[in-house]
Amino acid sequence: MRIVVALGGNALLQRGQKPDAAPQRENVATAVRALAPLAERHELIITHGNGPQVGVLALQSAADENLSGPYPLDTLGAETQGMIGYWLLQGLQNALPGRQVAAMVNQTLVSAVDPAFDDPTKFVGQVYGQAEAERLAAENGWTVKRDGEHWRRVVPSPAPQRVVETRLIRNLVREGVVVVCAGGGGIPVVRNERGQLQGIEAVIDKDLTGAMLAEALEADVFMVLTDVPAVIDGYGTPQAREIGHATPHEMRAIGFPAGSMGPKVEAVCRFVETTGDMAAIGRLADAEDILIGKSGTIVTPNATWPLSSTL
Amino acid sequence: MRIVVALGGNALLQRGQKPDAAPQRENVATAVRALAPLAERHELIITHGNGPQVGVLALQSAADENLSGPYPLDTLGAETQGMIGYWLLQGLQNALPGRQVAAMVNQTLVSAVDPAFDDPTKFVGQVYGQAEAERLAAENGWTVKRDGEHWRRVVPSPAPQRVVETRLIRNLVREGVVVVCAGGGGIPVVRNERGQLQGIEAVIDKDLTGAMLAEALEADVFMVLTDVPAVIDGYGTPQAREIGHATPHEMRAIGFPAGSMGPKVEAVCRFVETTGDMAAIGRLADAEDILIGKSGTIVTPNATWPLSSTL
Repeated sequence: MRIVVALGGNALLQRGQKPDAAPQRENVATAVRALAPLAERHELIITHGNGPQVGVLALQSAADENLSGPYPLDTLGAETQGMIGYWLLQGLQNALPGRQVAAMVNQTLVSAVDPAFDDPTKFVGQVYGQAEAERLAAENGWTVKRDGEHWRRVVPSPAPQRVVETRLIRNLVREGVVVVCAGGGGIPVVRNERGQLQGIEAVIDKDLTGAMLAEALEADVFMVLTDVPAVIDGYGTPQAREIGHATPHEMRAIGFPAGSMGPKVEAVCRFVETTGDMAAIGRLADAEDILIGKSGTIVTPNATWPLSSTL
Repeated sequence: MRIVVALGGNALLQRGQKPDAAPQRENVATAVRALAPLAERHELIITHGNGPQVGVLALQSAADENLSGPYPLDTLGAETQGMIGYWLLQGLQNALPGRQVAAMVNQTLVSAVDPAFDDPTKFVGQVYGQAEAERLAAENGWTVKRDGEHWRRVVPSPAPQRVVETRLIRNLVREGVVVVCAGGGGIPVVRNERGQLQGIEAVIDKDLTGAMLAEALEADVFMVLTDVPAVIDGYGTPQAREIGHATPHEMRAIGFPAGSMGPKVEAVCRFVETTGDMAAIGRLADAEDILIGKSGTIVTPNATWPLSSTL
C-alpha cells in the first residue's frame, strides 16, 4: 500500500516544551519509532507541520538587528523544511537500514486569486499592543488584527493546489524511497503574471496539503497523526464520544470548529470523497493500529466499506 | 557531460552586503543566469557554501532567550540547506521550464577518528573578549581560541568521506533532474558506536565535499565557481599572474594559503588526480566560458590533455 502521513508540528514540539533542539529531536525519535514499522511494509510519504518551529525562527529573525526586517515566510518555511527534514531523514535512515530515505525542499502552488488573499485570517508570530502592531504593519507591509486583548500579524491561508515537485516525489516513491516532503504544508508560491514561481507571505494548512498530495500520488491511505486518540463528537459536553468509523457525510454533519479539528476533518473528508479510499485521524503512537482499523477515527466512503479486506 | 558545480557561499551573500533575504535572492538570480545554460546542455549537480548564512542563523539562535542554548551546527546547517536550496530550486525551475529540479537535504559522513577532532581549527560565529569566550565555552561545551585580538569559537573541519544520499542523487541525475544538494558541504555526521548516523558540531569544506561528490558521481567536470576570474600565482607580488591551465602537480608546487585559495586548489587537484578528468576554478559569471577552456583556471592531469576535444 501507499500511505501518506501528515505529522503535526506539535508532535515535534509539544505545548509547554522549550523550543530547544534536543527535545524536538527526542520527539522526532518517538515519531520515527511509530512510522518506521509502516515503512517496512508499505510505501511511505511523510509530510509534517512547522507551526511552532517557524514561530521560533520568525521571532529570531524579527529580533535580528543586523537585518533591515524579518525574513519573509516563504524563506522561513524553507528553513524549517531543512531542519525538520534533516531530523526525520536521519532518524528514518537509522531505523530503516538498507532503505533509502529522501528529504526534499518543496513548494506548494496556490492560486494568485485565492479569496484568502482578500481576507487574511491566520494569526502568526507574537502578540503586540495596538500601537506597536500598527507600527510594525506599516514598517513591514503586514496586516494586523485584534486577537482577544492583543494584536497580531495575520496572513492568508490559501488552498493548496499542487506540490510543485509532485513528479519527483512520485518517482522516488516508485523506487522504494521513503520521502519526507512538503513540510509545513509546502513553501507557499504563486505563478506570477510572467508565469514564474514566486514565494508569498502566507501559510498553507499542512493537512490540506497532505490530502492533496495523497490524492496526486494515488495513495491508498491518508493518515493525519496527532496527539489525540480520535476525533471527539460533542467535545466538552457530557455526550462526548470518540468517533471510531464514519463517512465524510457523517463527519461533515457534526461540524468541527476551524481552530481545532476543523482542518484535519476537512482534509480527510476531501481525500475520501475525491478518491474513494480510506483516511484516518489518530495518535502518532497508534499509527500501526490505525492502519488496521483498531484505533483512531477511520473515514471511508460508506459504512460498509471493506476495511479489513484491504489492510 | 555530467558537471558538478561548487558555488561559494559568498556568491550568495557578498562581503559588506546586509544579510537580508532580498539581496541574497538577487545574488541567487545572478547565479541561476550563469548556471542555467550549463543545465540546458549537460547533467548538472549544484552544491553551495553556507558560511555567511549559517553565521546569521547561529547569531540569531545564540541571542534567543527562549532557548537554553544555541542550536547545534548540524541543525543550523540543515536550516541553510532548506533556505538556499529553496532559492536555487525556484530560480532554476523558472529558468528551465519543462525541466525537473530537486533540492535535497543531505548529510556528509566524516570519520569519527578524523584527526581534525583533536585540533579544531575552523573559526565560527562572532568574536568575544577572553572572559566571555571562556564563559560561553563552559556553558555550551565549545572550544574557543584566540583570533588576533579577540577570541572565537573553533570547531573541527574533518574531511568529507561520503554524502550519505549519494545513490539518491545519482538516480535523480540519471533521470535528467538538476540537483541542488549537500549545501554547506553537507550536514556533518559520523557513525557512532552503534553504527547510527549522528550529527556533530563541525563544518565541512564545501569544495572538498563537491570534489568528493563529483568523484562519486563520476562527473566529467568539477567546477569551483567564486568571485575571482582565476587562481593567481604570486598573489600580491609584482610577479602576480593568472593561471590559465595547470596540472595538479604544478598547482601543488605553487602552494596556496589555507585561508584563501588553499581548499579550492586542494579540491580541484584531488578530483583531477583521482579521476583523470578536468576541474576548474573561476568566476561564476564565466561558467560557460570556463567549460570551454576560455576562462578561469583549468586543471587537467597533464599539459597535453585534450581540452578542446571533450568540451
